[in-house]
Amino acid sequence: MKKQILCLVSACCLLQASAQEALWWKTPTTSPEVNEDKTVTFRMKAPKASRVEVTGDFLPKEIVFKGKQKNEVPGKAELVEGENGIWEYTTSNPLSPELYSYSFIVDGLKMTDPSNVYTTRDVVTMSNIFLVDGEASSCYKVNDVPHGSVSRVWYHCNVLGKDRRLTVYTPAGYELGKGRYPVLYLLHGMGGDEEAWITLGRVAQILDNLIAQGKAKPMIVVMPNGNMDQQAAAGFSPEGFVTPTIELPRTTDGSYEQSFPGIVEFIDKAYRTEKKKGGRAIAGLSMGGFHSMQISKEYPDMFNYVGLFSASARFKGRKDSPVYERCEDKIRTQFSKKPALYWIAIGKDDFLYKENMEFRSFLDKNKCPYRYFETEDGHIWKNWRTYLVNFVPQLFK
Amino acid sequence: MKKQILCLVSACCLLQASAQEALWWKTPTTSPEVNEDKTVTFRMKAPKASRVEVTGDFLPKEIVFKGKQKNEVPGKAELVEGENGIWEYTTSNPLSPELYSYSFIVDGLKMTDPSNVYTTRDVVTMSNIFLVDGEASSCYKVNDVPHGSVSRVWYHCNVLGKDRRLTVYTPAGYELGKGRYPVLYLLHGMGGDEEAWITLGRVAQILDNLIAQGKAKPMIVVMPNGNMDQQAAAGFSPEGFVTPTIELPRTTDGSYEQSFPGIVEFIDKAYRTEKKKGGRAIAGLSMGGFHSMQISKEYPDMFNYVGLFSASARFKGRKDSPVYERCEDKIRTQFSKKPALYWIAIGKDDFLYKENMEFRSFLDKNKCPYRYFETEDGHIWKNWRTYLVNFVPQLFK
Repeated sequence: MKKQILCLVSACCLLQASAQEALWWKTPTTSPEVNEDKTVTFRMKAPKASRVEVTGDFLPKEIVFKGKQKNEVPGKAELVEGENGIWEYTTSNPLSPELYSYSFIVDGLKMTDPSNVYTTRDVVTMSNIFLVDGEASSCYKVNDVPHGSVSRVWYHCNVLGKDRRLTVYTPAGYELGKGRYPVLYLLHGMGGDEEAWITLGRVAQILDNLIAQGKAKPMIVVMPNGNMDQQAAAGFSPEGFVTPTIELPRTTDGSYEQSFPGIVEFIDKAYRTEKKKGGRAIAGLSMGGFHSMQISKEYPDMFNYVGLFSASARFKGRKDSPVYERCEDKIRTQFSKKPALYWIAIGKDDFLYKENMEFRSFLDKNKCPYRYFETEDGHIWKNWRTYLVNFVPQLFK
Repeated sequence: MKKQILCLVSACCLLQASAQEALWWKTPTTSPEVNEDKTVTFRMKAPKASRVEVTGDFLPKEIVFKGKQKNEVPGKAELVEGENGIWEYTTSNPLSPELYSYSFIVDGLKMTDPSNVYTTRDVVTMSNIFLVDGEASSCYKVNDVPHGSVSRVWYHCNVLGKDRRLTVYTPAGYELGKGRYPVLYLLHGMGGDEEAWITLGRVAQILDNLIAQGKAKPMIVVMPNGNMDQQAAAGFSPEGFVTPTIELPRTTDGSYEQSFPGIVEFIDKAYRTEKKKGGRAIAGLSMGGFHSMQISKEYPDMFNYVGLFSASARFKGRKDSPVYERCEDKIRTQFSKKPALYWIAIGKDDFLYKENMEFRSFLDKNKCPYRYFETEDGHIWKNWRTYLVNFVPQLFK
């Protein structure tokens, strides 16, 4: 057996030597390295560089003044050059368990870590990721538990007259089983698409783990694309390899809300779902929270569970779409039909905090019962993953 | 509506100003740009750099001598600094229609293009990609045609006693239809995994397009993981964020071949398949070609169509696994059962060319009919995509 492997490997080496300068199955160095004491070492091979920094959400933010304006910017740390042109930095303290992201800055130029193939895209920002093990991050890991499937599926949107793409998580056992499952519709924020929750939000890992621990009911999770100007996430639509942007039209013109029953209808036909209000939840982050609020009040017999995560919580009636007219009345109607759960979560530093306070006042005044969950920090994925972990166990009880 | 959008965008700007230095939804510049005349312009914003190069498969290879040894290395081109620290290079000639990959080298440091979010991973090498439109590349594009679904699914492997992940393409209409479909099992090479064919191989795009053009029958494509040491591709197994490597044990010890009927059994249970030899094809590239040869001869009643793409075509009997014993006899038995197609494809420059010549001689001597397809170039994805485009229309006729 060993001979066999050696033969193939040496064949590959031959091929490689003649085809590329650098080995394409070896990284330049080892980075990042989570050490036993939970400090983390970053390394970068850059023999010609004169300055190498690392920046990421594991570093405390820095306060910078532009004139009188106080800005928070991501912290940076300097790497120090060692042998063979390998620069290195180790965090001064252990990091708490979390999924972190970072980039390098080499002589002022921001770049991903060539020794780490794990990246995520947030609009156009590519960052590397790493995970520090522990209780708080255990839900984001691929653990040795049964795994659900993740599918990218196309459905026909009658409102647009076009095919559109969505991401579907089906729980472990779905393929070989016969049972029906409840469905959580999970919506992304501005700049996101049907890839956002499954990559940045770690939906498959969170659901796999919560279901395996008996904390959540096995359920289907549907992650549609809320940008009506897009058929699919960047790179997966006939537009080709366009540069993603946050400045998309038709994200909040009411058409997505109006198209939503078509998504539910498709899912109810294509999957073994519980086709009733009690078997459906809708939740979203930021713009997706706004969409969840609007869709659930527009179709008050469709969803029994609603989650607003750092939502853009504008509920006052507007006249630019019939969907946005008489919002307050429609929300009162929705609550008169007693949804099983209306859940609002936001971080103390979120720029939408005040909007959420106002919406809560409205609900309080109108005796509309909801549950409220407040965290530290602001409009960040760490919070949205936390909200998902807390929301999902409350569903379909 | 405009006010609404402005409101959200300005909220995002506020958030952004306080959270990050650089806009996270704007790229530093526009790169690459495919010009109307099919030349391509690469740009890189690097005000502090003293040298910026681009390297990629669109440039002619360079010959480099190390002592007496002659090596081919990927070509490089110099970018020239213009205004605002933006470096630029335009290809001197139009590029022929193809899917290309490239990287930048800034002062000796290889990096991905921060203005291009489209990357692919080949083992540990991250490269950016772009597509030049035209007939030869039209199959690799997302065109405005009905799209199949792509799913990452877990099955239980009895040989390992573990769950393993595979990628499944189901053709457009599968979800809402009732019909049964034939299945192509498509295997990756050494260093690849269940992500290789779907990303580097553009399987979903190729199948969508060939089916839409009426050139291929609607079919399911199953892309398993051929590394028995892995449960799933890097990042998707309980091993965590490990660095991928090509040096995996248990890729050619016979156990994958022995486990293959379990994959077919799972697919036949989980999907609406044609559960018979006439409804099954198997093909693979490099090591996956070796696996396809071994599996199809080991189970001669399972597959009616076999494709070896740049295969590691070692067919002489060995004694390290019962699977590899008496190979020649088993291949003769396989051909006595008259498979509908045995297809061998290889490039003239492939380091496995001679092995394939020897295997073809063996087949010729034994009057085992096969079809042969020869191309330019060697052991590269461009060829494997081409082979897939030529193989798939011959299946399930």
